[in-house]
Amino acid sequence: MRATIMYGARDVRLEAVPDPVLASRGDASGQDAVVRVVAACVCGSDLWPYRGIAPLDQPRRMGHEFIGVVEEVGAHVRTVSAGDFVIAPMYVCDGTCLNCQNHASCSCLGGGFWGTEIHSHGYADAGQGERVRVPLADGTLVVVPGGPPDPELIPSLLTLSDVMCTGHHAAVAGRVRARSNVVVVGDGAVGLCAVIAANRLGADRIVAMSRHEARQQLALRFGATDIVPERGAEGVVRVQEMFDGLGPDVVLECVGTKESMDQALQAVRPGGKIGYVGVPDGGLELSVQMMFDKNIGVDGGLAFVRDYIPELLPDVLSKEIQPGHVFDSELPLDEVIDAYEAMDQRRAIKVLLRP
Amino acid sequence: MRATIMYGARDVRLEAVPDPVLASRGDASGQDAVVRVVAACVCGSDLWPYRGIAPLDQPRRMGHEFIGVVEEVGAHVRTVSAGDFVIAPMYVCDGTCLNCQNHASCSCLGGGFWGTEIHSHGYADAGQGERVRVPLADGTLVVVPGGPPDPELIPSLLTLSDVMCTGHHAAVAGRVRARSNVVVVGDGAVGLCAVIAANRLGADRIVAMSRHEARQQLALRFGATDIVPERGAEGVVRVQEMFDGLGPDVVLECVGTKESMDQALQAVRPGGKIGYVGVPDGGLELSVQMMFDKNIGVDGGLAFVRDYIPELLPDVLSKEIQPGHVFDSELPLDEVIDAYEAMDQRRAIKVLLRP
Repeated sequence: MRATIMYGARDVRLEAVPDPVLASRGDASGQDAVVRVVAACVCGSDLWPYRGIAPLDQPRRMGHEFIGVVEEVGAHVRTVSAGDFVIAPMYVCDGTCLNCQNHASCSCLGGGFWGTEIHSHGYADAGQGERVRVPLADGTLVVVPGGPPDPELIPSLLTLSDVMCTGHHAAVAGRVRARSNVVVVGDGAVGLCAVIAANRLGADRIVAMSRHEARQQLALRFGATDIVPERGAEGVVRVQEMFDGLGPDVVLECVGTKESMDQALQAVRPGGKIGYVGVPDGGLELSVQMMFDKNIGVDGGLAFVRDYIPELLPDVLSKEIQPGHVFDSELPLDEVIDAYEAMDQRRAIKVLLRP
Repeated sequence: MRATIMYGARDVRLEAVPDPVLASRGDASGQDAVVRVVAACVCGSDLWPYRGIAPLDQPRRMGHEFIGVVEEVGAHVRTVSAGDFVIAPMYVCDGTCLNCQNHASCSCLGGGFWGTEIHSHGYADAGQGERVRVPLADGTLVVVPGGPPDPELIPSLLTLSDVMCTGHHAAVAGRVRARSNVVVVGDGAVGLCAVIAANRLGADRIVAMSRHEARQQLALRFGATDIVPERGAEGVVRVQEMFDGLGPDVVLECVGTKESMDQALQAVRPGGKIGYVGVPDGGLELSVQMMFDKNIGVDGGLAFVRDYIPELLPDVLSKEIQPGHVFDSELPLDEVIDAYEAMDQRRAIKVLLRP
């Protein structure tokens, strides 16, 4: 079969690799599943090694977002069966460790990331390929009820692997609630999903900070009530003016740079909250004095995707939310290199790949 | 009358000053009250200018914690009358601005701090004296119901001016709830009150980090279930071991140094929360990468004292909580200089002053 491997900066290749097989060694025996990928995609965070900002120390299978059909399961898998349509979260988790019990599944003690060794469970393949061996299938995979989904739902179901859950994490960490006033910093797929999440949690006004016409339109479609194209100090003044000169209750920081975090800290009202999910630039630091003086709470990190999928899945199935619109491009897996280039050049918000 | 004035590092004087009188100028007219101080105290944060760490740019009346009896009120004061026994929070606030409406009263747009000019309302005297002119009396003062309180309650009522509400703020910001496991960093009056607050909010285990015998005993009396005398990396290992090798749900950071904040970030479990109220060292910064990787929420700042007093007052009056035990020393106002020295030398946790 074919799978995507990154060898280094701007060196992504689609290569022939062995078909995945169920493991049969040690105590890992029988806890895995083989999934045929129906759709996968390229993530903004895949661009970090692609651009050489976060270099790889060895070649790596790429793709932490995928949905597909289970082909085979190990003897001890109980919750997933051959033929099930499943969503894979952006990490492998066992669902039983103390961190999973604490709903902090992305810190699973037994799990790990796609394209890495998962303790005694072997190498986890990754999503930008034709098939994936999923270690710890019971803890990791979520079955979509009702058999094969409406093809129209594929893009939205795929966002539950990462971006929709990540936007939701920002909103939950920022404690968005009914009637909150929310500003979203970042107009990538995650920022746009954060707009959906804020709207879903009952926010009153939702301001999307974007200077990109297509993303502005999508933000409005997703529930944004206002668009602010200004950035930096000018953007801060604009959003403070919009909210009584004080700023919004919540800022959702979906970028991860010093500029975006400063913008969030400066814009939010005293006593307000920042929910952040942008993978931080290496040395990013927060001034505690600035947080202290305005009583700003800052919460977030890698999204608890596996914990959120069951909550968000019904709203995707009912089309109450349609995060799949973040995919403004679709390519066959053959053209995965073009998908990376389109994302890198910001020609696409997010590219869906079909094997 | 006499009042305490700080002129510079280690230069605190008790001096004769004019008796306060109700203001009668401009639009401030009639919104103030004169309070005869019954008890005041020295705060850990008073030691910052005393030690020259946060130098004053001009001499300043000292004392932001006091309780007393109202002697006179301006013509437009509605909620406070002569004879009322009142608690003053650690700042002046109007109770009507948007920040006060948002329960962020310490960022009141019309208020300010004791010992400073309050916009058009004149200079706010301060608590370490015989009398205080309180600007914006309706927004600032809280009346203790039932007339003059039991003298035994005086110390606990005084803690509602600052330290008990500040400990409560740490616990609220750290989202302590029923069955939380909590570690408190800092064994000063605020840390000890944070133990009370965590206990009051239903925490299961409460670990006080202290190597000071008297403070350990007080922590246990206030509801701590465990004492950890180790600090730094050794302390982190100890508390992680106590909680399944992962760490507690919540750490309450009641010091404000880089060491204490690092200890909190390292000790807390993935997905855990830090409530912080220690006035931060100037340059204190938080590593977002460290927060991101463990999904740690950090919230806190200056306590919303005026918002919390009504919630905590009934528990003080019923003796359900007895934070007054943080005062391990009591001196007449005449000996205010000794009070500063005792606090500076850590001979006393907190000194109560009687005019």
